[in-house]
Amino acid sequence: MSSERLQALREELARQQVQGFLVPRGDEYQNEYVPASDERLAWLTGFTGSAGLAALAGQHAALFVDGRYTIQAQQQIGDQPIERQDLNGEAIARWLCDNLKAGEALGYDPRLHTDPGLAPLARRLAARDIELRPLETNPIDAIWSDRPTTPCGSARPHPEAFAGEDSASKRRRIAELLADKPADALWLANPEVCAWLFNIRGDDIPHLPVALACALLYRDGTATLYLAEAAAGDALRRHLGPEVTLVHDKQALFDAARRQHVAKVWVDPGLTNSWTLQQLRAQDMELLLERDPITAAKARKNAAELAGSQAAHERDGAALCEFLAELPERVAAGDFGELEAVRLLREKREQREGFTDDSFDSISGYGPNGAIVHYRVSPESSLTMKAEGIYLIDSGGQYPDGTTDVTRTVALGDFPEHARDHFTRVLKGHIGIATLRFPAGTCGEQIDAFARKSLWDAGLDYAHGTGHGVGSFLSVHEGPQRIGKANTGVALQAGMILSNEPGFYLTGQYGIRIENLIFVRESEAHPGFLEFSELTLAPIDRRLVNRDLLTEQELEWLNRYHRRVRETLMPMVNEKTQAWLEEATQPL
Amino acid sequence: MSSERLQALREELARQQVQGFLVPRGDEYQNEYVPASDERLAWLTGFTGSAGLAALAGQHAALFVDGRYTIQAQQQIGDQPIERQDLNGEAIARWLCDNLKAGEALGYDPRLHTDPGLAPLARRLAARDIELRPLETNPIDAIWSDRPTTPCGSARPHPEAFAGEDSASKRRRIAELLADKPADALWLANPEVCAWLFNIRGDDIPHLPVALACALLYRDGTATLYLAEAAAGDALRRHLGPEVTLVHDKQALFDAARRQHVAKVWVDPGLTNSWTLQQLRAQDMELLLERDPITAAKARKNAAELAGSQAAHERDGAALCEFLAELPERVAAGDFGELEAVRLLREKREQREGFTDDSFDSISGYGPNGAIVHYRVSPESSLTMKAEGIYLIDSGGQYPDGTTDVTRTVALGDFPEHARDHFTRVLKGHIGIATLRFPAGTCGEQIDAFARKSLWDAGLDYAHGTGHGVGSFLSVHEGPQRIGKANTGVALQAGMILSNEPGFYLTGQYGIRIENLIFVRESEAHPGFLEFSELTLAPIDRRLVNRDLLTEQELEWLNRYHRRVRETLMPMVNEKTQAWLEEATQPL
Repeated sequence: MSSERLQALREELARQQVQGFLVPRGDEYQNEYVPASDERLAWLTGFTGSAGLAALAGQHAALFVDGRYTIQAQQQIGDQPIERQDLNGEAIARWLCDNLKAGEALGYDPRLHTDPGLAPLARRLAARDIELRPLETNPIDAIWSDRPTTPCGSARPHPEAFAGEDSASKRRRIAELLADKPADALWLANPEVCAWLFNIRGDDIPHLPVALACALLYRDGTATLYLAEAAAGDALRRHLGPEVTLVHDKQALFDAARRQHVAKVWVDPGLTNSWTLQQLRAQDMELLLERDPITAAKARKNAAELAGSQAAHERDGAALCEFLAELPERVAAGDFGELEAVRLLREKREQREGFTDDSFDSISGYGPNGAIVHYRVSPESSLTMKAEGIYLIDSGGQYPDGTTDVTRTVALGDFPEHARDHFTRVLKGHIGIATLRFPAGTCGEQIDAFARKSLWDAGLDYAHGTGHGVGSFLSVHEGPQRIGKANTGVALQAGMILSNEPGFYLTGQYGIRIENLIFVRESEAHPGFLEFSELTLAPIDRRLVNRDLLTEQELEWLNRYHRRVRETLMPMVNEKTQAWLEEATQPL
Repeated sequence: MSSERLQALREELARQQVQGFLVPRGDEYQNEYVPASDERLAWLTGFTGSAGLAALAGQHAALFVDGRYTIQAQQQIGDQPIERQDLNGEAIARWLCDNLKAGEALGYDPRLHTDPGLAPLARRLAARDIELRPLETNPIDAIWSDRPTTPCGSARPHPEAFAGEDSASKRRRIAELLADKPADALWLANPEVCAWLFNIRGDDIPHLPVALACALLYRDGTATLYLAEAAAGDALRRHLGPEVTLVHDKQALFDAARRQHVAKVWVDPGLTNSWTLQQLRAQDMELLLERDPITAAKARKNAAELAGSQAAHERDGAALCEFLAELPERVAAGDFGELEAVRLLREKREQREGFTDDSFDSISGYGPNGAIVHYRVSPESSLTMKAEGIYLIDSGGQYPDGTTDVTRTVALGDFPEHARDHFTRVLKGHIGIATLRFPAGTCGEQIDAFARKSLWDAGLDYAHGTGHGVGSFLSVHEGPQRIGKANTGVALQAGMILSNEPGFYLTGQYGIRIENLIFVRESEAHPGFLEFSELTLAPIDRRLVNRDLLTEQELEWLNRYHRRVRETLMPMVNEKTQAWLEEATQPL
């Protein structure tokens, strides 16, 4: 299909007098999930993965994707004249330098890139005398005739019972940080930080319950908030109060800043697109380029958010248990595949109070498909499940009181004996993190190896992180904290929610992952030390555990966890699930 | 004494028309240990610690030291008009900004600072319109009338039997890295990298067996080497061969580079003083500012270096065992203090083949002195030892085949029961590192917590790193690898030697540390994985171990290690020590 689109794009580039163009997967808010109106990469190339970049240079075109999308990209490109390349800065720079000539210009849409993201490429191109030129209008938008409209679903107040702190209080304490710098205003670059600061939520983006927004917070705690006009009803205006001025076009934000005599504005260059930086500079504002302080504040959940998360996890756990209890008979009945499993689990969640959406696209992998770490089931790939082997289901829900993310790996019948060894090593890693006590100041990278130690002992490992931050009815992936091999320099702090998800993948056979959400709390017995508490409630498949590989403490953890799962969920599930839960949580 | 020196320095600063001056502890090679001729900080302030900075600003003076030197600095400053401040960039910048006025100039000796080291201060001062001005001659040298002469002890060849690779081969493979960049020459900023590249050693610096040197390596593998004239005898010239040109003044190095038509020179800005950068720039050379490649090459020991280290550790272990065996009777005889213990251990090492020097100032801490992490015993501080309590001895030797560094903590008699718990937790951490298997690519910061886990479980920790790199008859502290909380981004690689030294310190009572040197090797059973091997051989005090706290695997490690210590050292020690060794290495 898209060869014509490539050709139309080349003609538009010629009109805009550039010889090349970058098509990232991302919107102007650098969101992980993007509205349909921003799926330019998919429109141009057919590729629908969650990370990628296309580039045009003269008559050449390339799609850059990472290892997990190699096969999918090849299939989706089909026979279009698009080369497939590795998604890394060096490969992109080399390809562009090879396919553009000195004196030519590579166009980009400054709304879809950040300055730090472009900097290394800009240096490489400059050395070859190739210009990196921001374009006023995105050439794809000029030719995408049936482009969906930008979403502007209504924004709504997020109740204080769930948020735990009103917006005025949040604005005041963030404004104090402005006084410290000093800066006159803080640029809120994306919908997530706006959602937190103003206690609002929306439905503009799949899986992420936010309204598209950006804002300026001033030193006196007042703010100017951009929202699409249709998004802002009366209830919302009352909720925001007189200290927050609503505007409906972005230029009005910059105008408001000028009227407020903002001379110095704090902007996070990693979150803010290049176009915004240009606009702020054009207002003669001095930019303080530092990490956004809301990301860190938002990561530390207050008591109401933690209580909400616990409540959401109980309902979510009950839904997951009903799914797991029903799974064997569905499989036995036949014609039940990975895709049907996703639908069944979604049904179970939809029956639970407050459920609004999956928190991400479920990963439902039977047998060999379980070994594909970022597997996304499609009608073509969906395997029919049989009463044997191993099944991995990684899914989550959005509820007004919390966001969930859980992975369970279950035996559907007989399985190879070595799977028990692998599962138990993954479980030991999971417990290694869950039971850890560590001093304040410890970063995720310093504890990641506890999740891997038992696998390392056997010369095994997994090629993904151990834990990511999770929002409070916000993104299932949020920073700044992380447990993984890469250095973050971010200390884990009380109130942070993280996933704990070690795994092991045997290509062509099965995947194993055990994921709970946990939160950080202060140790009562040992001041200055932190510990984790479980949020997720669902049995871990005892049939896959080799009891002899567990230490006494590990066994005790597992049995104690299962007792809590049983006692908490038993009153919340249907009768059939009660019998299953009783069995699944027996002490080992 | 030094109030007069402060006054004389102020007069010299007035002559050089600056209002302030920085006096770091360091020489032009950024050495950890410095020759007596470079002890300017001690000469000016009386402070003899291994890290510190003095600053003069108008009529004010301050000495900046870190937490471990607070008390010592106060004592050594005495009643001189010098404020004591914390050694950190922020405190230094604030003090200077407070005590200098706009338009004034702060002088510094560019030979004693690096550009990256000064950059944050330079920015802070520039914002206040205070100039940071390099001085042609060091004002202290101008007034230090009885300054010791710069050392120029003879440099000597380091035998290939120990180095494992001749200099020509090393020069060729480093020169290949130059071709890759490309750069025409590599600046060798300090005596350690010169010692490695040219296979030379010397005696110019305490504890560090090198000759003061710097050099330029060219793309064809030839080099120009600076050494003091007296240091370079005929044997050395023959060893260096025709491809290495010796020069005896630094200007001749820059002249040689010009004659070699060096247009682009690779310089490590972290290792190279600012004066050198100025000189290279003055030759119109382009500087490629990147990490020095020799530091990384030197860290990966070859088979001959590892075999040498093993041999040196056997002799060093035998000496340490004779010391430990003799200790009880010396203590019982009375009048035996921490200082006498250092002397006794030195005597034992001096009896061993090839011993040239301690590899650092021994830390000999009895009871409460053991709890001072960087304790350096003096006649005033030395405690007389009794047949009770706990004694910590951290020491090492320099031998032509290897550098050693070992800490043992021993009971001299009765001790509080909680010491057994603390010792056993430290031991569990030690074994946690010693027995770890980990994938290639793992950095020290990712495994550090295994050394702390058992202490963390009890709400305890220690405030120092777990492991540092160690040279091959070079510095006992060498990079780039490290095991600690701080992020290095440096993967541990086969051949690297590291210390493994968890500890625990109970202020006012005792210190515990168990330190072995270990080296990284490839796992035979698990390709792509690395493991550690022990170098240090000496019993770990069984009387301090709570057997019940150890897992079976930990107990097995300890007994296996002790068997190896016994079997290796038994033929190498005197009769009395043989009996002691037999007892000290019995299985637990």
